[in-house]
Amino acid sequence: MSFDYNNIFKEIFLQIEQTQDRGKIADYIPELGGVDPNKFGVHLISIDGRHYSFGDSDELFSIQSIAKVLTLSLAYKLENQKLWKRVGVEPSGNPFNSLVQLEYDEGVPRNPFINAGALVISDMLISLLEYPKQEFIEFVRKLSNNNKIDYCSRIAQSEKEVGYRNAALVNLMKSFGNIDNEVDDVLDFYFNLCSIRMTNKDLAQTFMYLANNGIEPISGERILSLSKTKRINAIMQTCGFYDEAGEFSFKVGLPGKSGVGGGIVALLPNKYCIATWSPKLNKKGNSFKGMKFLELFTTKTELSIF
Amino acid sequence: MSFDYNNIFKEIFLQIEQTQDRGKIADYIPELGGVDPNKFGVHLISIDGRHYSFGDSDELFSIQSIAKVLTLSLAYKLENQKLWKRVGVEPSGNPFNSLVQLEYDEGVPRNPFINAGALVISDMLISLLEYPKQEFIEFVRKLSNNNKIDYCSRIAQSEKEVGYRNAALVNLMKSFGNIDNEVDDVLDFYFNLCSIRMTNKDLAQTFMYLANNGIEPISGERILSLSKTKRINAIMQTCGFYDEAGEFSFKVGLPGKSGVGGGIVALLPNKYCIATWSPKLNKKGNSFKGMKFLELFTTKTELSIF
Amino acid sequence: MSFDYNNIFKEIFLQIEQTQDRGKIADYIPELGGVDPNKFGVHLISIDGRHYSFGDSDELFSIQSIAKVLTLSLAYKLENQKLWKRVGVEPSGNPFNSLVQLEYDEGVPRNPFINAGALVISDMLISLLEYPKQEFIEFVRKLSNNNKIDYCSRIAQSEKEVGYRNAALVNLMKSFGNIDNEVDDVLDFYFNLCSIRMTNKDLAQTFMYLANNGIEPISGERILSLSKTKRINAIMQTCGFYDEAGEFSFKVGLPGKSGVGGGIVALLPNKYCIATWSPKLNKKGNSFKGMKFLELFTTKTELSIF
Amino acid sequence: MSFDYNNIFKEIFLQIEQTQDRGKIADYIPELGGVDPNKFGVHLISIDGRHYSFGDSDELFSIQSIAKVLTLSLAYKLENQKLWKRVGVEPSGNPFNSLVQLEYDEGVPRNPFINAGALVISDMLISLLEYPKQEFIEFVRKLSNNNKIDYCSRIAQSEKEVGYRNAALVNLMKSFGNIDNEVDDVLDFYFNLCSIRMTNKDLAQTFMYLANNGIEPISGERILSLSKTKRINAIMQTCGFYDEAGEFSFKVGLPGKSGVGGGIVALLPNKYCIATWSPKLNKKGNSFKGMKFLELFTTKTELSIF
Repeated sequence: MSFDYNNIFKEIFLQIEQTQDRGKIADYIPELGGVDPNKFGVHLISIDGRHYSFGDSDELFSIQSIAKVLTLSLAYKLENQKLWKRVGVEPSGNPFNSLVQLEYDEGVPRNPFINAGALVISDMLISLLEYPKQEFIEFVRKLSNNNKIDYCSRIAQSEKEVGYRNAALVNLMKSFGNIDNEVDDVLDFYFNLCSIRMTNKDLAQTFMYLANNGIEPISGERILSLSKTKRINAIMQTCGFYDEAGEFSFKVGLPGKSGVGGGIVALLPNKYCIATWSPKLNKKGNSFKGMKFLELFTTKTELSIF
Repeated sequence: MSFDYNNIFKEIFLQIEQTQDRGKIADYIPELGGVDPNKFGVHLISIDGRHYSFGDSDELFSIQSIAKVLTLSLAYKLENQKLWKRVGVEPSGNPFNSLVQLEYDEGVPRNPFINAGALVISDMLISLLEYPKQEFIEFVRKLSNNNKIDYCSRIAQSEKEVGYRNAALVNLMKSFGNIDNEVDDVLDFYFNLCSIRMTNKDLAQTFMYLANNGIEPISGERILSLSKTKRINAIMQTCGFYDEAGEFSFKVGLPGKSGVGGGIVALLPNKYCIATWSPKLNKKGNSFKGMKFLELFTTKTELSIF
Repeated sequence: MSFDYNNIFKEIFLQIEQTQDRGKIADYIPELGGVDPNKFGVHLISIDGRHYSFGDSDELFSIQSIAKVLTLSLAYKLENQKLWKRVGVEPSGNPFNSLVQLEYDEGVPRNPFINAGALVISDMLISLLEYPKQEFIEFVRKLSNNNKIDYCSRIAQSEKEVGYRNAALVNLMKSFGNIDNEVDDVLDFYFNLCSIRMTNKDLAQTFMYLANNGIEPISGERILSLSKTKRINAIMQTCGFYDEAGEFSFKVGLPGKSGVGGGIVALLPNKYCIATWSPKLNKKGNSFKGMKFLELFTTKTELSIF
Repeated sequence: MSFDYNNIFKEIFLQIEQTQDRGKIADYIPELGGVDPNKFGVHLISIDGRHYSFGDSDELFSIQSIAKVLTLSLAYKLENQKLWKRVGVEPSGNPFNSLVQLEYDEGVPRNPFINAGALVISDMLISLLEYPKQEFIEFVRKLSNNNKIDYCSRIAQSEKEVGYRNAALVNLMKSFGNIDNEVDDVLDFYFNLCSIRMTNKDLAQTFMYLANNGIEPISGERILSLSKTKRINAIMQTCGFYDEAGEFSFKVGLPGKSGVGGGIVALLPNKYCIATWSPKLNKKGNSFKGMKFLELFTTKTELSIF
């Protein structure tokens, strides 16, 4: 089946415009709060390399938690199955759970996409890499085929200044022996990875290896084995949207990951990768319009993993 | 791609035989505890109607919680989106959560596959159907193409006698106004549906409508719309294995549902439906060998939704 | 030191009248909701047998949870230290804890004054007594020196009709093996004991044995040993006011017990017993005016256990 | 009533010697683990100034959490009722609650004696005092009438090195806005106050102001008002023994406070103050022999607040 995605994008956008854009932009740091809330962009890359886009798809935004899939990929590549001794693969239940669950499970986070889990993965990469921040950004540049991708030090610094809850998580895990490096080093790496900025086009390109069985499609380089690729997609499916992962799976039916910067990336294995951006977030912290857009998109195209 | 599933089954079975069959048979009621723990069966039906089986695939066993997918299907067909006002679609986090979560969320269960959720669905069907038990078993007979499928009154009675925790759940939800019928009627319906007995072949056949976009393949009758079918598959994916849903998704990569009788059913949309049975359960309450078998099966065939 | 309690009562009442009577009458059953919210009464009996009263101290009201001290006393008298195998003596932490804590502690309630604990005590008395309801009310009549004290069947029936949460608690504890009798029998006994009606005068008289080292002062009969008496006072001190026990201890400094009917009883060992009644409850479920009154009373008299 | 406490001490000690000294010495820092586990001392000071002692009552030990009563006293003296906006007076329910409760209550600890609460009090004192550590130790010296009382920098340093959980608590509370000063400064003050060393005699003397209506008995200086004194005693009664406060109140019937160094201090208002020391702790973290000793002591003397 082949689709005229450009027309579908337009059609859905018009439909969404008629509903009220509920939600609230993330404003806990000034750098995020300053974004124009009316921005909306989408970009799709098909497995055969065609590009389709709509709206503000060429503007840079902060990908935030979406970067957690990339740190997980790099750590999984280097650590293999050992990685799963320090972090689980189960959905976390509810947003309040983080500290509760961590205490109950003695410092082992339920999955790599809740903050605690991403902090453990950061700790691993610091131990595994000689120049952690440099090597990680180079990994991202390779995936995105864009050498300009970089950390945003302003955002990283802003997050650090209000990052007491993340400091609480790292300290709690360290008290259980699940953090090897210094607390401040882990936080520094973590706040940097969350600060990476991309366009929708970059984002869709970056995640193509997960839609393409582990192979970065432009260079043809294998990033992850088939099995690891499927497993990362499975974790995105069950844990990619905080406490709304079930809802996203139910309504959209694709593995994906969201960030509080308003971005969402999702993919249909062997078919396409799609990235959306709209800064206003629903109560669960996911882009209100992005969620709606993807729901309508898979409904209209009748394409999902189910 | 076409597979000689019979050979794959044999190969995996030999591999599993070499690992120790850990786990424990469910014995909280004598009727379950009396089963031969060494039973093992598997049955696969492909979308084009071919059958493949291995081991004790023609023996009846108690499908237990697997029936929750069938009550959900019938209730969803009749209630449509209204159903989701009384039950959520999010994974439940951890096994201890049931009562905790229910109290926190004021009587609304997180999903239809935890006990609390299945009890709410039971309550709905009692309100919606004139002869609830009769009409439900007829629905199951139609899906299975087997008129002999029935409740097992011995098992239902046994469960009722030790069902104080389920009685606690119904009473708690009734205190929040999320149960309309009498507590005893809801429990009676619920214990009956858990008591249904099937063979692996029946089970695979019964779930074919979910692999076939909502259409029962032998009669060609539409059971559910395409959208509802995908959504039930999505819930199985994220919530079908209690606190091990993430693990199953991670290792197997298929939507599925397990029961404490040792049965598991899983499906690859547009490809096949597979049912396994092995009575010993791991700590999370899922069949130890069944989980292993399905993990090896999707690894060998390299077929999963991801 | 000797006090003119009558004048102190009047003085405090005038002071309280000037502050707004915040709070809400308990209305989950019509029988409680129908009470005049402006009623206020207080009655004090000193260790030497003098009576002091103010306001509506001769009107009957539903003592509700205050009766839990009396069932505990009778069960403790009969069961001795064995009783503490089935219920703890620790404060419960927070109001949401009941089911959570019960699940975590496998059916053993934290103390005898949360509902779960009182239900276990009820279960004990049903096993220990030949005619449980009759023998218990006779025990209360003896303590109160008033043969007219009785259950109120209207209130008991009303509570039963909305008592699903209590039914959830009994069922949950029975699933853990901490309830011996039939669920319905335990609930029937429990709802009856909560329905007992008394005046402030009755209430103060009934609790005099706890202020008098275990001896009912009029007959001189020993009800409890000195050690058991001190221990029940200690439990009232730490657990007598739901999630506000610390607050009551902090501000009033006496062992006591409240009920959702608006009654509070408190005592200073070897000095006096005091009962107040005012139907409007604060958010924690304790009488708003009663709490205030007792705080001012111990402040003015500078008498407390500390 | 007058007692020959020396004989009672001997008698109880012999009785305790016959029971096995269960429990385990706190060894999370080498400084605590190095103590001789067989040490046992007790010291009582009566309201009329007589001293009674037994065993190793003149040896220095680390008072640990007992110091929290002293920081609370100083902060309460300076901040008055404003203090209670940042910390509650309710028992904490269970030991796992700390982080859970803190998240639920948005950074306000349940009481000043759980670690989170003592950290908030530390934060207050840092803001209130010009030279916090110096001024606090002078306050303690005044209470103890012993100018040699001091922090132990070895212990403070040891605790800091493993204090990740406390760092988690401070960071979590700072994320909710309930910590004003720098995280490291709060932790430094806190670890120092826990490191103070005293003998049983010092400890009993230090707490005499709480048995004496707020007045330090040797100098006659008022330390706290009568009302504040009663309130601190009330908090010790309900929250002084972690998750065993109810048990201590039930069996001993005195306000008191324990520390993981094996010390316990308790008092009967207007009668006496008593300090015990025995390093082995029960599962709840309270001195095994100290708890037993005080239970037998109040049983034999029949003196308690109830």
